[in-house]
Amino acid sequence: MKLGILGYGNLGRGVEAAVNQNPDMELCAVFTRRNPESLKINSKTAKVLSVNEIENWKDKIDVLILCGGSATDLPEQTPKYAKIFNVVDSFDTHARIPEHFNNVDKAAKEGGKVGIISVGWDPGLFSLNRMYANAILPEGNDYTFWGRGVSQGHSDAIRRIEGVKDAKQYTIPVDKALNAVKNCENPILSTREKHTRECFVVLEDGADAKKVEAEIVNMPNYFADYDTTVHFISEDELKKNHSGIPHGGFVFRCGKTGLNKENNHIIEYNLKLDSNPEFTSSVLIAYARAAYKMAKEGQTGCKTVFDVAPAYLSPKSGEELRKTML
Amino acid sequence: MKLGILGYGNLGRGVEAAVNQNPDMELCAVFTRRNPESLKINSKTAKVLSVNEIENWKDKIDVLILCGGSATDLPEQTPKYAKIFNVVDSFDTHARIPEHFNNVDKAAKEGGKVGIISVGWDPGLFSLNRMYANAILPEGNDYTFWGRGVSQGHSDAIRRIEGVKDAKQYTIPVDKALNAVKNCENPILSTREKHTRECFVVLEDGADAKKVEAEIVNMPNYFADYDTTVHFISEDELKKNHSGIPHGGFVFRCGKTGLNKENNHIIEYNLKLDSNPEFTSSVLIAYARAAYKMAKEGQTGCKTVFDVAPAYLSPKSGEELRKTML
Repeated sequence: MKLGILGYGNLGRGVEAAVNQNPDMELCAVFTRRNPESLKINSKTAKVLSVNEIENWKDKIDVLILCGGSATDLPEQTPKYAKIFNVVDSFDTHARIPEHFNNVDKAAKEGGKVGIISVGWDPGLFSLNRMYANAILPEGNDYTFWGRGVSQGHSDAIRRIEGVKDAKQYTIPVDKALNAVKNCENPILSTREKHTRECFVVLEDGADAKKVEAEIVNMPNYFADYDTTVHFISEDELKKNHSGIPHGGFVFRCGKTGLNKENNHIIEYNLKLDSNPEFTSSVLIAYARAAYKMAKEGQTGCKTVFDVAPAYLSPKSGEELRKTML
Repeated sequence: MKLGILGYGNLGRGVEAAVNQNPDMELCAVFTRRNPESLKINSKTAKVLSVNEIENWKDKIDVLILCGGSATDLPEQTPKYAKIFNVVDSFDTHARIPEHFNNVDKAAKEGGKVGIISVGWDPGLFSLNRMYANAILPEGNDYTFWGRGVSQGHSDAIRRIEGVKDAKQYTIPVDKALNAVKNCENPILSTREKHTRECFVVLEDGADAKKVEAEIVNMPNYFADYDTTVHFISEDELKKNHSGIPHGGFVFRCGKTGLNKENNHIIEYNLKLDSNPEFTSSVLIAYARAAYKMAKEGQTGCKTVFDVAPAYLSPKSGEELRKTML
């Protein structure tokens, strides 16, 4: 299976590393919008090429993994390249998924290709678990918690404040809420009751800490609805203790069964990830394998994790899977 | 969707109750090897019929749910009925799954039907989670823990001992082992280190408690490899405190990613079930829906949970799923 990557940020580097763990895969090319000469990659065999050359590779790559951002890159790139490649992306703007699906579906059908969108852990594995659990326990409540982990969007929002040199923001599930769910109490939880936010901020010289703190905790949408703690630390400390990109979270379904709904069941799925982008990349390439297999069978069009039979993700045959994993 | 049930034990009754929670389903018939007159079911609309009449229903039922046991019923029934019905079973003898698969596959292809086997939580949802997690994190360790829950097989083994009137056995994961896994220690665990066994036993009048206890804790395969606790209690107490059939368990995958395998990730799936058979039944009927949809598309042959795209389990359309669950 020959793979290409478009975009060499955290996600692209994660895909590059993950390919090494999958002997049935080979990374052939990394496409970039930057000057290819300026890009140093880890792989010794893959080529670094300008995105302008990508069309020349349409018969040399089985699946192209799109590692751009959801805001502006993927809405344009995924439909564009689904016409000539089997593609996988991690489009994660939940509200715009139906529109993105339709665009990719049209393009992929036109090109006779498979495009799998919104792959990762949320959307992705968390979505799968919500869906399976809802199909099994039709009467019940869903709960999703995120963290403890770094939210890139919230960290960026803090960095835009005047007087802030750098910042990291952690989203943290509230133990009391988590425990109420685990105890089958089916709580009704406000935004504030579910998560807290913890910020580590490096100030510019002479910045007013009180003012920055007030700006953070009162920021609408991002922080105002949460209990937010702000710690001012040195640049060295930020680098030493907060340079990782961990994340994770929990998906619960609490449901009832029985003639009188007398029995409670809890399905819990949770992730603890040292590196959010590396884990997302690992999910992406498992679905790249699926795209490859589905395309080989003659399937075309846009798919999500809901449409992909689990066995497609594995390098093992059906027989091996039944023998070793069922 | 019209459903039939073959076998009206705990599982059959669970299916009957679960159908009420799924408005797209209707229970039409319960087939039994007993005298149908002797069988009292909860449903007011379903018919109770002798299994001898089952062939007359081949055009009136969309999916037949086989609720017999794995030891002798299903190896015979599933291939037999897969010739004339779409079927779903909960065959759980792991070692014999490949053989069962082949038998059902042949029969279902002959009849142009779909047969989904080994559906439930283990095999079933636990298998799915092992498989997804292995495809995503190819380098790592798997851990499965069962319980706290009632093991029917172990309870039966105790009941066969002379002097025992009744008994319930609980399988319990060891906290120390669970925590070592959750802490990413990748422990190597012996059978004894993973689970303990707790037995609640009602003695016959005049039975020798010491002798019964020794027979239990030294029983090969069942108890000898575990730390086992035996409590002698009254029949009333057993009835009052141990008449439920709870179960559950945990599936973990601890894996590494990164160029130098420097990042750890834990994927955890866990179930806490008040009623093992009712939950298993709920999984069965979600897969009955899948069998129905796949058959309508013209698919045939034997499938396992690995072969069924998640969306088939849900009553929602692809569009609805993408909008609400992705």
